[in-house]
Amino acid sequence: MPSIYVFDLDGVLWRGESVVPGAPEAIARLRAAGKRLYFLTNNSSQPRRVYVEKLTRLGMPAQESEIATSASITAAYLQQQGAAGKSVFAVGGPGIHDELGRVGIEVVSVADPEERDLACSYVVVGLDKDFRYETLRRAQQCLLRGATFIATNRDGQYPVEQGVIPGGGSIVAAIATAAEREPLTMGKPEPLGLQLLLQLAGVSPDDAVMVGDRLDTDILCGNRCGVPTALVLTGVGTREQAAAAPPGLAPTRVIATLAEL
Amino acid sequence: MPSIYVFDLDGVLWRGESVVPGAPEAIARLRAAGKRLYFLTNNSSQPRRVYVEKLTRLGMPAQESEIATSASITAAYLQQQGAAGKSVFAVGGPGIHDELGRVGIEVVSVADPEERDLACSYVVVGLDKDFRYETLRRAQQCLLRGATFIATNRDGQYPVEQGVIPGGGSIVAAIATAAEREPLTMGKPEPLGLQLLLQLAGVSPDDAVMVGDRLDTDILCGNRCGVPTALVLTGVGTREQAAAAPPGLAPTRVIATLAEL
Repeated sequence: MPSIYVFDLDGVLWRGESVVPGAPEAIARLRAAGKRLYFLTNNSSQPRRVYVEKLTRLGMPAQESEIATSASITAAYLQQQGAAGKSVFAVGGPGIHDELGRVGIEVVSVADPEERDLACSYVVVGLDKDFRYETLRRAQQCLLRGATFIATNRDGQYPVEQGVIPGGGSIVAAIATAAEREPLTMGKPEPLGLQLLLQLAGVSPDDAVMVGDRLDTDILCGNRCGVPTALVLTGVGTREQAAAAPPGLAPTRVIATLAEL
Repeated sequence: MPSIYVFDLDGVLWRGESVVPGAPEAIARLRAAGKRLYFLTNNSSQPRRVYVEKLTRLGMPAQESEIATSASITAAYLQQQGAAGKSVFAVGGPGIHDELGRVGIEVVSVADPEERDLACSYVVVGLDKDFRYETLRRAQQCLLRGATFIATNRDGQYPVEQGVIPGGGSIVAAIATAAEREPLTMGKPEPLGLQLLLQLAGVSPDDAVMVGDRLDTDILCGNRCGVPTALVLTGVGTREQAAAAPPGLAPTRVIATLAEL
């Protein structure tokens, strides 16, 4: 039996502002059975406490230490690399600024005087709704001077009630093209974030299970890390997609709802 | 002997604000010999008259009808497609607005009320120094509604005196990623622009010669169109690069200066 469960959020525990029926009961049952739970999202724009509040509001109380956003994963990775005290040129929302600041990184942005860019060892890029040409130019110049390039995620689209808006991956694409460089990517389906989470939790991949609704992000990420996966049919992915998926994208199990966990 | 010559500009006739030595004499000699000359640039940001003024200032007087920018090529292409009277959502500088307006296209931009986007049959993207997230979102929405996607060029970097700044291709990359669509590209090395120029001039490819300083834009473009090419060594490309180039990138001739034309 797995000792930890890693959950994607949208399509698994909620859809927009609506709780997925049965999710709170499933979460409560796993907690009562002594399982450790983590909640892993590619979204870098909000601080983790926003997820704590939403999970709690929807009947699934959680602690900040159980939440991993692509911004908090990036901060943990940079901390491991010895980046405390160093400067990062950040392209993103409050989630990135908050998480990087918490591990002792100096955050520089387009709002700061340009001379501060010269000290930046890293460029970290996520969804930035204030993105503009000047941000693109300054990120490009940092990268051309040799800064390490990190993307929180490569999602080109970000789902909202009315459809989609541009995601962090579209901003990453602009900067990558302007700098002729490809980033190290933290979010799903890249394995770094989940690997780091397992390492911090002190468990091996086969002691965990990755629960998600998308083959091309959640399931692919679990497979790349050697973590057993469960595709839950309450979101985007279907049983037919799972049956037709090539090995890298095929889930270990398909479950109709979280009650089957 | 070729009857028309198509010249790239930067690295061929000038470098920044300095004329390439011997270029005015070569241009004057070709004109005296009755050759027709065209000047083809991937830059979409300036109206053609800016190039007329610069060529004249540097001792190579030219007419507006001899200049082809990726914006004027885009306008000519759209005119051929019957786009006069239709609306385009334009992401770019005054060059794009000016050229599209001149062929009777309604130009909509992020400065206009968003309801005007609904009428846009095309999204045209070039270098836009006022680019911001809202521009990206509105271009994305037009494309998701089915607008045709046209890039003036895919150059990720734009050379300036101090080095490079982000080029139109970096903005195209953001929009392509957000819309999950690839554009039709007008600029070099794509063949459309040069093909259109030959068609408007009424000559066959082997009656022309393409003169440029870059293998991966000018020479590749000429080769794709079946136009004989001359790599001039006054810019970026070298004799060694030409000798090592695969067939698609290999120029027909390598010339030290335009005096050899």
